Amino acid sequence: MTHQHPLGKVYLIGAGPGAADLITVRGQRLLETADVVFHDALVDPAMLNWCPQATLVAVGKRCGKHSSSQAFINKRLVHAARHHAVVVRLKGGDPMMFGRADEEIGALAEAGVPFEVVPGVTSALAASASLGQSLTLRGHSRSVAFCTLAQADEADAAKLPQADTLAVYMGRRHAAHIARQLLDQGKPADLPVCVIEAVSTPRERHLHLNLGALAQHGAQDWLSDDAPALLLIGAAFGQRHQYAQVLADRRLRA
Amino acid sequence: MTHQHPLGKVYLIGAGPGAADLITVRGQRLLETADVVFHDALVDPAMLNWCPQATLVAVGKRCGKHSSSQAFINKRLVHAARHHAVVVRLKGGDPMMFGRADEEIGALAEAGVPFEVVPGVTSALAASASLGQSLTLRGHSRSVAFCTLAQADEADAAKLPQADTLAVYMGRRHAAHIARQLLDQGKPADLPVCVIEAVSTPRERHLHLNLGALAQHGAQDWLSDDAPALLLIGAAFGQRHQYAQVLADRRLRA
Repeated sequence: MTHQHPLGKVYLIGAGPGAADLITVRGQRLLETADVVFHDALVDPAMLNWCPQATLVAVGKRCGKHSSSQAFINKRLVHAARHHAVVVRLKGGDPMMFGRADEEIGALAEAGVPFEVVPGVTSALAASASLGQSLTLRGHSRSVAFCTLAQADEADAAKLPQADTLAVYMGRRHAAHIARQLLDQGKPADLPVCVIEAVSTPRERHLHLNLGALAQHGAQDWLSDDAPALLLIGAAFGQRHQYAQVLADRRLRA
Repeated sequence: MTHQHPLGKVYLIGAGPGAADLITVRGQRLLETADVVFHDALVDPAMLNWCPQATLVAVGKRCGKHSSSQAFINKRLVHAARHHAVVVRLKGGDPMMFGRADEEIGALAEAGVPFEVVPGVTSALAASASLGQSLTLRGHSRSVAFCTLAQADEADAAKLPQADTLAVYMGRRHAAHIARQLLDQGKPADLPVCVIEAVSTPRERHLHLNLGALAQHGAQDWLSDDAPALLLIGAAFGQRHQYAQVLADRRLRA
């Protein structure tokens, strides 16, 4: 390994849930000064309009025919920091939750490259905002768990976290399986479920059902093949009907 | 109740964890157009520089000698929307998690006032960014639970969520009690714990210890009386020493 002194710094920036203006002000300002931007394919192209001066490099698993391996991304980040002052790694959502930032941080640390992490809005919070329904309700829904089961199997599903509200990221393929596990754990079949696709983008869609219906593949035909889907499960979503008309009115006026 | 047609719209905006530039771009832009801003006392005054045109109203429990009751805040939001086009309710962190947004949304919905929620960066993600340590690690720390025990008693503590990583908001007063509960649940005494105060502000401080030490009041003398504290608990924080030197270097260079 070479120990060339790094010229620059790597900023791991959370791009947020999808919409360009849901990045933080700090993230936006760093984009404006970036020399190179390594971005996930899910990042809204409008966000990249803030860095016309930068060299753009699409990386990650959804950027077309072939995926960049994590090891390859790590290497490129280290290399870029040896030749540029401001290197940005723009990651969907927040880098530190389901973002594999730890692997990039490990590689940067080992190579002696300074780095900084800029947090982002995670999808479940954007989904909650869009639905107009809190993830927590004072007094009865006090905890929220976030998990992913991208490569779920029987053993993984047994590790589902326990909390009043559950947000499952990348849960499309295993939605029915997850619902069955929750029923087996004793959750009621009428527990409200919201499935949100492509949150905060023009393609955003919502499906409201309950845990029993989800276990019976109730979301299967509705789900798209190519959009990220988030499952929100919990009694907190039972207030939907109260606000549904207001939300509908809001959309008509928007 | 009067049914005067509302003139405006209420935006419930997440101010983020503390630093002014960790609000979203959307939130910042709305502040720039606001007629009235109802803000939590914890919000960085620098953030309010973005809305010199707006009438500022400090509300919430930390704004000095007396607190505004939630019912009073709700009433003022509805009233403001009848007289102003753009009413902002700026809330620390994210409005939909531990933010009591549901109570404000309920009041707005009942009064027929249009509203929109703009999500924010929640403190645990900002703390994770600041520590340079992911909340999740691919393969072994797959779930994160966020909870609060502001009015914890024995019964509440029994409702602690179960996940690989646990983030306890507003956990200062009950830190030792929470740690004891987790030990009783079978978590190991050497499980890493990070306590973060005033995350993303100039007063930010970190304390690293383990669950056994926390249960024995190991954080009590360190904690401030007047800063928000977040507890992060989980095996994911065991990698600290690997990156500690890099983080220290980063601070020297900054």
